[in-house]
Amino acid sequence: MILHLKDTISNEKAQLIAKQYNGFLLKSGEKNVLITEALLKEVPQDIEAFVDEFWVFDNDIQLASKKYRSDKREVKIGNVTIGGQQNATLLMGGPCSVESEEQIRSAAELLVGLGLTTLRGGCYKPRTSPYSFQGMGLEGLKLLVKMREEYGLSVITEARDATHIHEIIEHSDVIQVGAKAMYDQGILRACAKTQKPVLIKRGFGTTLKEFVQAAEFVLSGGNENVILCERGLRTFETNTRFTLDLCGVAWLQEHTNLPIVLDPSHAMGYAYGVPVLSRACVAMGIDGLLIETHPNPKVAKSDASQQLNYDEFKQLVESLRPVAASVGYSMI
Amino acid sequence: MILHLKDTISNEKAQLIAKQYNGFLLKSGEKNVLITEALLKEVPQDIEAFVDEFWVFDNDIQLASKKYRSDKREVKIGNVTIGGQQNATLLMGGPCSVESEEQIRSAAELLVGLGLTTLRGGCYKPRTSPYSFQGMGLEGLKLLVKMREEYGLSVITEARDATHIHEIIEHSDVIQVGAKAMYDQGILRACAKTQKPVLIKRGFGTTLKEFVQAAEFVLSGGNENVILCERGLRTFETNTRFTLDLCGVAWLQEHTNLPIVLDPSHAMGYAYGVPVLSRACVAMGIDGLLIETHPNPKVAKSDASQQLNYDEFKQLVESLRPVAASVGYSMI
Amino acid sequence: MILHLKDTISNEKAQLIAKQYNGFLLKSGEKNVLITEALLKEVPQDIEAFVDEFWVFDNDIQLASKKYRSDKREVKIGNVTIGGQQNATLLMGGPCSVESEEQIRSAAELLVGLGLTTLRGGCYKPRTSPYSFQGMGLEGLKLLVKMREEYGLSVITEARDATHIHEIIEHSDVIQVGAKAMYDQGILRACAKTQKPVLIKRGFGTTLKEFVQAAEFVLSGGNENVILCERGLRTFETNTRFTLDLCGVAWLQEHTNLPIVLDPSHAMGYAYGVPVLSRACVAMGIDGLLIETHPNPKVAKSDASQQLNYDEFKQLVESLRPVAASVGYSMI
Amino acid sequence: MILHLKDTISNEKAQLIAKQYNGFLLKSGEKNVLITEALLKEVPQDIEAFVDEFWVFDNDIQLASKKYRSDKREVKIGNVTIGGQQNATLLMGGPCSVESEEQIRSAAELLVGLGLTTLRGGCYKPRTSPYSFQGMGLEGLKLLVKMREEYGLSVITEARDATHIHEIIEHSDVIQVGAKAMYDQGILRACAKTQKPVLIKRGFGTTLKEFVQAAEFVLSGGNENVILCERGLRTFETNTRFTLDLCGVAWLQEHTNLPIVLDPSHAMGYAYGVPVLSRACVAMGIDGLLIETHPNPKVAKSDASQQLNYDEFKQLVESLRPVAASVGYSMI
Repeated sequence: MILHLKDTISNEKAQLIAKQYNGFLLKSGEKNVLITEALLKEVPQDIEAFVDEFWVFDNDIQLASKKYRSDKREVKIGNVTIGGQQNATLLMGGPCSVESEEQIRSAAELLVGLGLTTLRGGCYKPRTSPYSFQGMGLEGLKLLVKMREEYGLSVITEARDATHIHEIIEHSDVIQVGAKAMYDQGILRACAKTQKPVLIKRGFGTTLKEFVQAAEFVLSGGNENVILCERGLRTFETNTRFTLDLCGVAWLQEHTNLPIVLDPSHAMGYAYGVPVLSRACVAMGIDGLLIETHPNPKVAKSDASQQLNYDEFKQLVESLRPVAASVGYSMI
Repeated sequence: MILHLKDTISNEKAQLIAKQYNGFLLKSGEKNVLITEALLKEVPQDIEAFVDEFWVFDNDIQLASKKYRSDKREVKIGNVTIGGQQNATLLMGGPCSVESEEQIRSAAELLVGLGLTTLRGGCYKPRTSPYSFQGMGLEGLKLLVKMREEYGLSVITEARDATHIHEIIEHSDVIQVGAKAMYDQGILRACAKTQKPVLIKRGFGTTLKEFVQAAEFVLSGGNENVILCERGLRTFETNTRFTLDLCGVAWLQEHTNLPIVLDPSHAMGYAYGVPVLSRACVAMGIDGLLIETHPNPKVAKSDASQQLNYDEFKQLVESLRPVAASVGYSMI
Repeated sequence: MILHLKDTISNEKAQLIAKQYNGFLLKSGEKNVLITEALLKEVPQDIEAFVDEFWVFDNDIQLASKKYRSDKREVKIGNVTIGGQQNATLLMGGPCSVESEEQIRSAAELLVGLGLTTLRGGCYKPRTSPYSFQGMGLEGLKLLVKMREEYGLSVITEARDATHIHEIIEHSDVIQVGAKAMYDQGILRACAKTQKPVLIKRGFGTTLKEFVQAAEFVLSGGNENVILCERGLRTFETNTRFTLDLCGVAWLQEHTNLPIVLDPSHAMGYAYGVPVLSRACVAMGIDGLLIETHPNPKVAKSDASQQLNYDEFKQLVESLRPVAASVGYSMI
Repeated sequence: MILHLKDTISNEKAQLIAKQYNGFLLKSGEKNVLITEALLKEVPQDIEAFVDEFWVFDNDIQLASKKYRSDKREVKIGNVTIGGQQNATLLMGGPCSVESEEQIRSAAELLVGLGLTTLRGGCYKPRTSPYSFQGMGLEGLKLLVKMREEYGLSVITEARDATHIHEIIEHSDVIQVGAKAMYDQGILRACAKTQKPVLIKRGFGTTLKEFVQAAEFVLSGGNENVILCERGLRTFETNTRFTLDLCGVAWLQEHTNLPIVLDPSHAMGYAYGVPVLSRACVAMGIDGLLIETHPNPKVAKSDASQQLNYDEFKQLVESLRPVAASVGYSMI
């Protein structure tokens, strides 16, 4: 249950009530917002006098639910804003992994040349084998910072586990919580304590409900800048790397108030399918798109098969603009 | 392996060779086309002299493969043609089940009013429970025929099993092979002996390879008019009815030469998601779309939750035209 | 809802009531049993006077439900009986496909030598490619009949589609409805009209509910001799052919009254895993086991990798007896 | 590739070679063991002179592979040893969550009374909702330590994320890496630096290959005491909580050299199915079983539906002994 407490009660009283009901207490604007387990279906008599308004829920999707807040939330990334009434699809491009200054600089220049604003690049790679390339770590992160400083781009990179989450929070403009890390409370609780945007990827074995509940960890901890990212489910079909769940995206658009980003590169796993899938994504009216591009995909240290080369990336961007326009959106 | 035999050899000789290699012999235009198991990787010496051209394959996707024929095949449905270079998306609309003359007539009139040409409606319903509505059967089929006669529409309806496939072949303009029936060789082999278009739906537990191999049953039996239809996989996610596999569609577009139709209604299972998913589908540049619509979805005898009412259907059609245009297609 | 009608009412009246409620009317012993959609939750007032007893259900698992009949049903196969209080696990062995008289005779002699009673062998193979071996068809079926006549074995073989179901019903002692055919109402409705045992395999993409509802098609049509067979789900894991669902078996044992058979050969897909999985199955206290064995698996025309050779089969049978005994069962 | 370097070369040289090939260098007994990416298929000429023996692999399952070491590894847990030739199934019992001293003490006494040795209990619960019970944390861990001290039991508890892994390593006898945390390199790398046994649970969306590769993170970091635990996949079947993958267990037994534990409680999700599934597991000849039991499951703060009460637990243990014996194992 979410309860808006009356403005008139003291902070101490609010905290007392929160403790009594094992709830989370937030300031949202001027409001004291209390969230308890969804099992609570009626306002307890002893606190009725302190409650302005309340919302009852079927399950623990609460702050992210359209039932609580029916408009889509806005999130600011650098100089641009997504969500809300913006009708803008933010294209975040760049390599799977930061591999060298030369490589990441070429990606930065590609984006600037196309009028784009946000650069992606992995530094701490969540590889499933200890024997493959694990990413450049902090050194890579510093290269991203350098690109921001030189080109004015926002940067987004992924936290693999809680041991380096504070480095990511410090240096990245958007904190990406990867598909394999999205149940990681060490990460989620740290993200709740910053005000930087947090992009949470859905795990490939994760239900929609669990996905949005990961967002609730961040929202209930006090950070409202949460973005959901669908990047494909693991199914029996192995001719493609994953199965992008656009039915799930339709569900999220209907039931949640969070901006939605799609990652067709990881879903497909093969460059040939990325443009056509990207057009499908953009036609849904989404808030962002993550696309992997590399100056020479064949020699990429990770995800070689799914990265577009720069010519393919440029053509993709051109092809997306009319699709976005056909549903009243613009590519930014 | 596919082999084009020389024009000069006799029919008897061609049949002898086919028998010797357990192959299928087809006339495609003037050509004698022989198809054997994909395991055959080299032309046997004793028939080398009779072979014009040949194609080797990794697996039993052969006639449907882009390796054999790189252009997309055309299929004619009534007065319209899909596939090939048509860049046309055929919108097939109508109720889940034919329920009465009044109901199906209203759907026919809706389509005609929107300039559409093809009416869908189930007569033999593949229900999983024996205790629910099983469809009107032959009586429903005759209502569809009546609509064709009165309104000049093409009709498409589904074969549930082999016991009534000949009725469907006789009366329907497009033979739909349902998701639960697509392994049914009684149906597939019957479809191979007609020249009517056959739309094969992918089973919800069916790999892309098995799906296209079902098409091979029809193609190798002599009917080239095969259409593939993706309608959603069964995954762990149950907030939507199925998970529409658009990664799989990208794979089919890349690897096969058959027209592709999508069915977002069954994938989503809920009317609210059908418009946004339909726009995603159309943005992929597809050959057709199957949409369920009912004069009063709440009282529908099957699939009540996923059918659009007529106003929603009209709005959907309007919203699809600019999306199709943005990728160089037209809605027909 | 299931209703037992009073003995005193006439057949005509019973049929009238059945028609009125779109129900199925069965004779079970002396009882007139009426089954309607599960949506019916209360006995309608106008027929209350004709009803002895009734059962209400959450869904369309009715005749197969433990709520209706709490004891496990018995099914007789040749001279042996499974289910009920028999505590017997029937081992059905034999090749994937009947390939020749010599081959199937060797399998028959293997079984007889081990004191087993039931021979399996496929005749109409549900292959997913038209270009691979499709089975010997009726010729194979006649070889099975010959083995029955010569060795006194019961035989079990699979119906692929409705076009040959009547041949199977005529010649086989147990009618196997394959995983790909289990939604086929042409088959299920034909099976309902015989009294021969019907073994229904769960589809690899089929929910437990749909699986048991397939049994309801046979039960509600008047054939009580239905056996359920779990043979593996299709999941993302591809190092094994399928994923045997023993959690699902525990559910079936708890909720349904039908005998249960397991098929570890198809689930595993590799001979090395069949013995250890078979022991797991037998330890659950099950009514039967289907095991593929071939005189020379390497040259088998189908499923070469998963068939045991005869020595492996003999060792397996010996290893199963103590496991069965440890849960109070015997291998028959 | 795994290479055993000659005893005669110096540590410095060994480290130099390791660095040159981006490899991991281990001491295994007296041996210098070098592991590189599996992509390396031939011993490079320049180090041939330093290599005693080497093993080539298809993928990054190397140290855990039967190809490298064909006997099953032994792991010591307190006073008992599993794996190797022990033929012993270790039953680890206890509540889902440590809830109070009284509760965990009753579980300790239950185990002692049954002659069992290892107590489980969650302290840091990986809940998917921030609003439900999150576990007692360090306080719970200290209760487990108290039980060890008082009853001589070994204890096993789960690390949820890297922020508290060092507490777990310090206090727990077996470090459990949960299904949602098994990709967490912060956890895995920390586990590699202790010699305490590490039990890694397979994620519900994790392939067998990824699962064993998680073990490679620990093995290649220098801790040989790794145990694999299967606890169910997430599939489309929702009548049970997960789908226990015993085909996968057969694969692990065939291809890896690590002890295997099964967790039927989490797989099934319902107490009624735990005993019958446990018997299936034990009949496979496994090294351990994790079973949840609670003094009063109805009031449990997590996983209420799947925990056995103490009477059910006792009956289960009794029923498992003859099953274990039937495959030559004993329950310990």
